[in-house]
Amino acid sequence: MTDASNAAPLAPRAIADVPSWEAEADVVIVGYGCAGASAAIEARQAGADVLVVERATAGGGASAMAGGEIYLGGGTAVQKACGFDDTPEAMYTYLMAATGPGPNQAKVEVYCERSVEHFQWLVDCGVVFKESFYERPCWEPPTDDGLVYTGGENAWPFNQIAQPAPRGHIPQMEKKRPGEKSGGWMLMQHLSATAEAAGARVMPDTRVSQLVVEPDGRVAGVIARQFGAEVALRARRGVVLASGGFMANADMVAQHAPLVAGQMVLGTDGDDGTSIRLGQGLGAAVAHLDAAQTAMPSVPLLVYPSILVNQYGQRFINEDTYCGRSGQAAVFHQQARCSLVLDEKIFESVPEADRWGYRPTWVCETVAELEAEMGLPLRSLQSTVDLYNEHASRGEDPLFHKRAEFLRPLQSPFGAIPLNGLPYAVFTLGGLVTTVDGEVIGPGGEPIAGLYAAGRATSGIPSWGYASGTSLGDGTFFGRRAGRAAASARPRVE
Amino acid sequence: MTDASNAAPLAPRAIADVPSWEAEADVVIVGYGCAGASAAIEARQAGADVLVVERATAGGGASAMAGGEIYLGGGTAVQKACGFDDTPEAMYTYLMAATGPGPNQAKVEVYCERSVEHFQWLVDCGVVFKESFYERPCWEPPTDDGLVYTGGENAWPFNQIAQPAPRGHIPQMEKKRPGEKSGGWMLMQHLSATAEAAGARVMPDTRVSQLVVEPDGRVAGVIARQFGAEVALRARRGVVLASGGFMANADMVAQHAPLVAGQMVLGTDGDDGTSIRLGQGLGAAVAHLDAAQTAMPSVPLLVYPSILVNQYGQRFINEDTYCGRSGQAAVFHQQARCSLVLDEKIFESVPEADRWGYRPTWVCETVAELEAEMGLPLRSLQSTVDLYNEHASRGEDPLFHKRAEFLRPLQSPFGAIPLNGLPYAVFTLGGLVTTVDGEVIGPGGEPIAGLYAAGRATSGIPSWGYASGTSLGDGTFFGRRAGRAAASARPRVE
Repeated sequence: MTDASNAAPLAPRAIADVPSWEAEADVVIVGYGCAGASAAIEARQAGADVLVVERATAGGGASAMAGGEIYLGGGTAVQKACGFDDTPEAMYTYLMAATGPGPNQAKVEVYCERSVEHFQWLVDCGVVFKESFYERPCWEPPTDDGLVYTGGENAWPFNQIAQPAPRGHIPQMEKKRPGEKSGGWMLMQHLSATAEAAGARVMPDTRVSQLVVEPDGRVAGVIARQFGAEVALRARRGVVLASGGFMANADMVAQHAPLVAGQMVLGTDGDDGTSIRLGQGLGAAVAHLDAAQTAMPSVPLLVYPSILVNQYGQRFINEDTYCGRSGQAAVFHQQARCSLVLDEKIFESVPEADRWGYRPTWVCETVAELEAEMGLPLRSLQSTVDLYNEHASRGEDPLFHKRAEFLRPLQSPFGAIPLNGLPYAVFTLGGLVTTVDGEVIGPGGEPIAGLYAAGRATSGIPSWGYASGTSLGDGTFFGRRAGRAAASARPRVE
Repeated sequence: MTDASNAAPLAPRAIADVPSWEAEADVVIVGYGCAGASAAIEARQAGADVLVVERATAGGGASAMAGGEIYLGGGTAVQKACGFDDTPEAMYTYLMAATGPGPNQAKVEVYCERSVEHFQWLVDCGVVFKESFYERPCWEPPTDDGLVYTGGENAWPFNQIAQPAPRGHIPQMEKKRPGEKSGGWMLMQHLSATAEAAGARVMPDTRVSQLVVEPDGRVAGVIARQFGAEVALRARRGVVLASGGFMANADMVAQHAPLVAGQMVLGTDGDDGTSIRLGQGLGAAVAHLDAAQTAMPSVPLLVYPSILVNQYGQRFINEDTYCGRSGQAAVFHQQARCSLVLDEKIFESVPEADRWGYRPTWVCETVAELEAEMGLPLRSLQSTVDLYNEHASRGEDPLFHKRAEFLRPLQSPFGAIPLNGLPYAVFTLGGLVTTVDGEVIGPGGEPIAGLYAAGRATSGIPSWGYASGTSLGDGTFFGRRAGRAAASARPRVE
């Protein structure tokens, strides 16, 4: 049952109730993940005195845990070097189709127009992208290749909607091992080094709990806990909320996105919705709080040539799409009850190291036996496999349009990997409504003076549908814009 | 594209900026639908001076447009007279299963415990429920019968979860004609007559636009427009927000529930989210803003014995469930792209008057021909009908568990009624978070002093899943409690 107090908006504190300030800056940034770091860099470069407040002992947040794909396109140097012609228009068309329902047109537009510039900015921060393309289906390349498909751009229906191009750009790691530090960690190394070299101050082990407001409603700073003591931190120009989404707050999840309740938190304890609740306490608008990225608990190499079936033994999506997309389909539309049905030939085609330990729970000579072992309704899976095989034998999939290269009739011996009960790795996508400059929209549709936000504390590029890389992508992109806007805000009048 | 200003929270006005009050009351109620009227009755009976503010020229709102089913149970006089044994426990078990994901346990609990008392209260307000049961599948009985199944209680999976009982109680109408005034209108006649007889004052043609707050945040009244002029209405004890949901606000729908964007608004222009936005402007918590009741655009008599297929020619639900439930499945999980497949025998079994004009777009001798006419993938519908018929011939439906009485193999000639593009009648279910006493939860999880809410402006009994009658049910039930709580609140100190 929802505990209202853990999910509720957080009340601001009147500046009259702040006896003294323990520290001051032009711009106070809450959270030191990719959005906070990017805001810090830009704000500092715009001449502002910057203080980044982070609840953990070091920065990084969920960004540093990420695979590291950054969604960039429109013709980056890496795309060109790898032989892909991409345009801002194709990128825009894809994102408008893939990030809905309810895509954020204004954000998608500026994000695509300025994506090549943003790529260059990341390079200027020291991020290295190797000019090589990894073409096999994957969550993230096991290599140090710099470019990969991350959103099903080359699969149905998007390959019918926009000219496909891979847009997942991955910071290069010299020694990359599965499960160890990866591209997201590397990205954060460069961003935090750049921010700190530029002169941003970082205050770790400090947990923000309140916004401070002036009598006219303008945000003037934050209240935080630091080693048990309360500190007040004054922001002369603005506060940037960038402490992530709310997947680690079970009460918020129950209240807004109950279909992902109980799934695996992809993030840190800090993804507890604090930024969103701080904004709501000032009357900030929120959007798409039901949305969440949900990673299919399997490996794309196994999923693409197999068939995904629901609890009725039916297929429900083209298996060769981005596995975050099939994961969303499974969790939001199939009650997270589905299985992967494959055959020995498919299983054997995937090197053991790339199977991540997944293997069939059942192996049977016939589909009828497999159906019975899986507890599926009589004839349901047989009917599905018959139909799939009939079409696949002609290289066709008129139902879901899987590409011919992944179509082959399943043949004995058959196997199944049940995904019921396996954890889908989830982070939330809904959050504060912001302008393209990171201003938080408040009462009357006007920006709340002195308040900015970026990253997964906001509803950004992925309104609902997702592509890997859009979070590090919009976190860095709109984090920069929020930092710049905050730095140029009218300073508080004494 | 979303216009932030139409969807954003609404800023309160400081009491210092209110030069004079045009009217005063202990309790000011915003909206004169079933929740507002019920709040008015209880507040007045508790001794409070009550002013109901309504933007239309007369009360009624969406409540008066409703079929009139009120979800009541646990052993009402009507249930007993019709031979149904119901208990608060069975009602609770059903509602906890049917109104999720994320059911509101606290509200469901008190709602079930006190449902028989609430039934009696409605009777005391003059509402007449005829002690007769209408047993055919329907949206609302074409007769004046007083009891009907409205939530799929007797269909899978709920018939496996809780002892089924019909709980849709319908105010009797002497002369009822399809499409004319119905039970909801009759309910509102009795509630408004009771409220006004008790001494509640009603101010029509008055549109509330702001809450007025004291320096400590307590709500002290409202600002409204009345024939072009602004009026300030003082609430000495409390304001009750009861102006409905937000289906008529396209920008809010785009921001929170884009899957129902463009569907038919089941309600009035007043269902524009004003109450929700007023609460948000004070930092009120919201929940389940993505949820919506979505009525299948067909008639249950035709749907139950037919099969519902999606754009892949697959079935996706037991067709004999509540058609609001299959409507939600279609809109939220099947992209609102589905069709009803039936045969001549089914069609002929429904009297013409009960078909509401629905008739097959295509009639074919074979399923293969029908599949082609419908533009479904080759062999998809044939596969589905083969499987359905094979099981139906034995009176079974192992996939979706439709009851045997609605199972019969489809036979030539076959027909199909495409539902793509037909309007689903929708109202939103998400809204303000309130306690069981109608207090609006604000910053810190604490009630906002002086602010109450009820009806579809709140997230109530139907958190996400729906049963017909739960809106008039929780609107009247929690409207009463909000009115009583507001009436007994500490009056504002001068």
